[in-house]
Amino acid sequence: MIVVMQQGCTDEQIERVQEAIESKPGFKAPVWRGEERSVIGVIGSIYPELQSELELLPGVVQVLRVSKPYKLAGREFHPDDTRITVRDVTIGGNEMVVMAGPCSVEGEEQMLSTARIAKESGARILRGGAFKPRSSPYSFRGMGVEGLKLLAEARDETGLPVVTEVMTAEDVEVVAEYADILQVGARNVQNFILLDEVGKLRKPVLLKRGFATTYEELLLSAEYIMAGGNNEVILCERGIRTFEEYTRNTLDLAAIPVIKRLSHLPIVADPSHGTGRWHLVPSMALAAVAAGCHGLIIEVHPNPDKALSDGPQSLTFENFQNLMNSIRAVAAAIGREVAPPVEAPTAG
Amino acid sequence: MIVVMQQGCTDEQIERVQEAIESKPGFKAPVWRGEERSVIGVIGSIYPELQSELELLPGVVQVLRVSKPYKLAGREFHPDDTRITVRDVTIGGNEMVVMAGPCSVEGEEQMLSTARIAKESGARILRGGAFKPRSSPYSFRGMGVEGLKLLAEARDETGLPVVTEVMTAEDVEVVAEYADILQVGARNVQNFILLDEVGKLRKPVLLKRGFATTYEELLLSAEYIMAGGNNEVILCERGIRTFEEYTRNTLDLAAIPVIKRLSHLPIVADPSHGTGRWHLVPSMALAAVAAGCHGLIIEVHPNPDKALSDGPQSLTFENFQNLMNSIRAVAAAIGREVAPPVEAPTAG
Amino acid sequence: MIVVMQQGCTDEQIERVQEAIESKPGFKAPVWRGEERSVIGVIGSIYPELQSELELLPGVVQVLRVSKPYKLAGREFHPDDTRITVRDVTIGGNEMVVMAGPCSVEGEEQMLSTARIAKESGARILRGGAFKPRSSPYSFRGMGVEGLKLLAEARDETGLPVVTEVMTAEDVEVVAEYADILQVGARNVQNFILLDEVGKLRKPVLLKRGFATTYEELLLSAEYIMAGGNNEVILCERGIRTFEEYTRNTLDLAAIPVIKRLSHLPIVADPSHGTGRWHLVPSMALAAVAAGCHGLIIEVHPNPDKALSDGPQSLTFENFQNLMNSIRAVAAAIGREVAPPVEAPTAG
Amino acid sequence: MIVVMQQGCTDEQIERVQEAIESKPGFKAPVWRGEERSVIGVIGSIYPELQSELELLPGVVQVLRVSKPYKLAGREFHPDDTRITVRDVTIGGNEMVVMAGPCSVEGEEQMLSTARIAKESGARILRGGAFKPRSSPYSFRGMGVEGLKLLAEARDETGLPVVTEVMTAEDVEVVAEYADILQVGARNVQNFILLDEVGKLRKPVLLKRGFATTYEELLLSAEYIMAGGNNEVILCERGIRTFEEYTRNTLDLAAIPVIKRLSHLPIVADPSHGTGRWHLVPSMALAAVAAGCHGLIIEVHPNPDKALSDGPQSLTFENFQNLMNSIRAVAAAIGREVAPPVEAPTAG
Repeated sequence: MIVVMQQGCTDEQIERVQEAIESKPGFKAPVWRGEERSVIGVIGSIYPELQSELELLPGVVQVLRVSKPYKLAGREFHPDDTRITVRDVTIGGNEMVVMAGPCSVEGEEQMLSTARIAKESGARILRGGAFKPRSSPYSFRGMGVEGLKLLAEARDETGLPVVTEVMTAEDVEVVAEYADILQVGARNVQNFILLDEVGKLRKPVLLKRGFATTYEELLLSAEYIMAGGNNEVILCERGIRTFEEYTRNTLDLAAIPVIKRLSHLPIVADPSHGTGRWHLVPSMALAAVAAGCHGLIIEVHPNPDKALSDGPQSLTFENFQNLMNSIRAVAAAIGREVAPPVEAPTAG
Repeated sequence: MIVVMQQGCTDEQIERVQEAIESKPGFKAPVWRGEERSVIGVIGSIYPELQSELELLPGVVQVLRVSKPYKLAGREFHPDDTRITVRDVTIGGNEMVVMAGPCSVEGEEQMLSTARIAKESGARILRGGAFKPRSSPYSFRGMGVEGLKLLAEARDETGLPVVTEVMTAEDVEVVAEYADILQVGARNVQNFILLDEVGKLRKPVLLKRGFATTYEELLLSAEYIMAGGNNEVILCERGIRTFEEYTRNTLDLAAIPVIKRLSHLPIVADPSHGTGRWHLVPSMALAAVAAGCHGLIIEVHPNPDKALSDGPQSLTFENFQNLMNSIRAVAAAIGREVAPPVEAPTAG
Repeated sequence: MIVVMQQGCTDEQIERVQEAIESKPGFKAPVWRGEERSVIGVIGSIYPELQSELELLPGVVQVLRVSKPYKLAGREFHPDDTRITVRDVTIGGNEMVVMAGPCSVEGEEQMLSTARIAKESGARILRGGAFKPRSSPYSFRGMGVEGLKLLAEARDETGLPVVTEVMTAEDVEVVAEYADILQVGARNVQNFILLDEVGKLRKPVLLKRGFATTYEELLLSAEYIMAGGNNEVILCERGIRTFEEYTRNTLDLAAIPVIKRLSHLPIVADPSHGTGRWHLVPSMALAAVAAGCHGLIIEVHPNPDKALSDGPQSLTFENFQNLMNSIRAVAAAIGREVAPPVEAPTAG
Repeated sequence: MIVVMQQGCTDEQIERVQEAIESKPGFKAPVWRGEERSVIGVIGSIYPELQSELELLPGVVQVLRVSKPYKLAGREFHPDDTRITVRDVTIGGNEMVVMAGPCSVEGEEQMLSTARIAKESGARILRGGAFKPRSSPYSFRGMGVEGLKLLAEARDETGLPVVTEVMTAEDVEVVAEYADILQVGARNVQNFILLDEVGKLRKPVLLKRGFATTYEELLLSAEYIMAGGNNEVILCERGIRTFEEYTRNTLDLAAIPVIKRLSHLPIVADPSHGTGRWHLVPSMALAAVAAGCHGLIIEVHPNPDKALSDGPQSLTFENFQNLMNSIRAVAAAIGREVAPPVEAPTAG
């Protein structure tokens, strides 16, 4: 950080700032006295409160941050991309990984049929919600543990690893028992108790950006998980809230190249929540691929008009299969790989 | 809800929509066949998924909502203002109630000195954070249960009821043991597990609007708590996130008259978090009073430049005392009462 | 500005930055070589392109701005409040000035009756639109010069100075002929051609903040007008666009204390456009007064449900008169004056 | 529109609403009396004020819009895509058209060298600003007519049609004399006087979305131009203002499929202004292509660090040439064409 002093500030004011800085263990505070203005450097480790403290001291005009407030999630000290391997799938490498499945697990037939289509079409990971955050208390809130079991059953049949949301610290253990990747949803991106808890795991976490979370805050939330020792964090852009109401959210695809610049962690995109309308999903999925995402997470449902949640943003099986073909073409155009379709077994 | 059909839609399409509606228990679906367009009414209780389901049916142009999706929190079925009494303080009536205290509980001396000043100045409720949500894992996260005990000690001395934040469902029990009002913070406004849990209490809950939460979503979150049987919900406007970065948040004071129109629940304002800068707090506190809020929650600290959190937005004792005098004057101008200052006891 | 260099940058990189700065006439570029990092100061006058230029140079991490980019509008070099006098009314002093009138001038009877009520209630300035910016080409776009004449007629009768909007540089002359204050609307806050043109006048300009304009950008737009020699700029907060759709805009009342801190220019608030709903206007008008605004601009109409524009946000005569009484009470509570009601002449 | 009445409203209230509707020439107002609620239809042509008027009538709960408020720009009455031909280039067809050039015209050498590289790389249209909207009055504001002449000279040499911004109605004639396409910038998207004026032309207009303009408002601004008889409007997504400050704007690529659904007009994307950082331009350009845009507008400069405006977002010649190769690959992957590179003439 750099502390900018007022023109004409006193030596005492400068010294008081220096003392405030150097009172922290290991900190130094060199002063540069210019003709017009003096400036004081802050050299030391991350200490978030210091900026606020200095801003309140007399004679201080502004405290400017230079370093990033996240060390573990940032690229500065970890220049190489992180690759996260779940069973036989690697996220963060040259393969662009598609995760697909219904918004909510609703029953065995729904889950298994979707899992089969996902697998056949080239998806590598299966998604499905067992615990659902719903803005109305009168909405379907998911099947709970029963849903986790159906996800595991679908994984056993298809071999696809499973990603599913965990909503509270108390559920981390049971969700981790069934899931291969634990999702922390947009509404929980700053549920720090939950972040602490998944930080204790040694399983990958898919961390979704919140509606109103900046890139920096998203990386700070990843830092929480990593500070607990869990380095396997996959970030997910899923749209932010803006004044535009036609789409459910505004999918901010610049997050993809920005996060790749600021961080070594993989970044995937969710065009289903990012638009909220199934007819916009294909265009935005392809756009995310062209922007360089490491993966996509897409909602697919056998009967979107009967879905218990998020039907309007789910693709039918046919639309999903068509989209996968286009995804492969666009990925190839930028030198990225996508898994090929898998022939359906004759007996199912 | 009203379902608007395409011009020239078929009778089969209309019937399919009617069937979808009437398949829900107790629902009716009268049709109005206009010259240009047909429209179908939806008559029944709250059923959030229905809108999505109908939007996907062939021939449907739009599904328009008429009723509000919240019944318990809405004013339609509860025309009278809810008044919530905590010990000898009533929130939601003609008295404008000031809640004051430090952002974080940091120690006995800090807490007690602040509580005394709060009391003497005419504040009626004491605030202080024992569990702190912090965007960086390297920040001070609060004293925990030790902090709760210091709050209780300050209440015992001053008689001021205590409001403090609870961050996770697991902590609800212990926080409820010490606190008079449990605060659900902005980042947890859609932590539905936590909302469910405080809904089981029979203690008041102060529910803060999230950075990116609409009025309707705030009322739906209140509905969660009330659906659990806890009707004592106090809503709090604390600023939303916008493109303007000079202030920490944009304090949306229109929330006060709007919430009073849509809901019977009390609404208070937090000018400290709403601006993030202590020198803006007095103006915005007075503005909130003039706008008709039922209460204010204000950060006060003996030494803002030594505060472990949110120093830049905390008032000194002197500034707080001055503000209280102005608050009394503005409240009187619009016919509202504020508690008078209390003479300090001689021995303290 | 301060240029922050990368750790381990070369001497050549530092010299290149210095040269880029010192090539501007009168600029100096002192270097501070720290142990970890070097930092280069930029000392000189306002030169907006320089920041961009420096950011692109090799070895540069960040270029941090210290000074404000506006000199004429800023308080740093003009510590005293600017007071603007229009006929017998002064804006920017201790009097809180109410401007009232219909959104659009629609006819003689409408304009005169509203002007009389405005006058009697204690408004000091008459508003009314003759040229109307409308988002649809099919909307009523104002009476044009005919409307200006009706405004002048109403002024002649009541003695109230007139504020009205000018939409394009070509119209500045004709509008200035009839109006006492020219309004530049929210949609034109960055219409730099128009700003240049009103900068040539020696008449006050009411400059409205745009839907998506920061405080700094608003002050830069004021700077445009002042750079032309016209120092009489009145700023106006009228709401910004956010994700909240219940209100037409989000009235950002923190703008009042912030602008008063950053600038010496008067700041008024427009609760009519700021909310878009008449029933919210009184609360927000009072809030703006309590926040310390120098004036209010309020829409009043004899028959809001017949208004050719913005009916839903206009007050009836009766509601306006009641509001004026409350405004006087709140202003008095914070030590501000508001003109008293004026007895209506017997013959009218 | 549909007018929703309160439960228990009176027959007189219903009749008053009907009268208000049917008093407009050619309007009809059928009533549907439900068991719980009555609803009144509004059948007639576009009449923007009617909604506001009806909302104010007693007994009315809500007025819901069904039809789109734009007829000429909307797809409903013009199902086929509009193709706009400028010299030998067609925008809106299967070819994805790249427009390239510097932010500002700065001199002959800069303009001609950039035009040559643009041409050789496969760009089809040349951009360059002669009149520049700048937020600070101290910034370079463009070369004016001299700049227009340099653009025309570059066109004469390369054969590339020219697009350049017009900032005010007065300049439309002179800009139209030199330019092939007139650009209306983001800050002027609701400068209705300018929209009226370019509506009188019979030359294509590139209309940029504003920082805070919804899709619907963008189409209403296009409607202004088309209402004047000029049907050749090209829409441009260039980023909206959000809380995220890392990027200059948030490029909202969902605008591409949404506008293609709502309108028959071509839609292009501007990844340079949309991100404000040159290193993000390639990813976002490719994303826009994959999302299905009809064209791109990209800033290219021989020496970005010497540019008089927007250097940080301009590509060097080399980066632009590399990007064009990637654009061709992604376009081909989704079945779209891009012009091939052109061999440079031997003598230059």
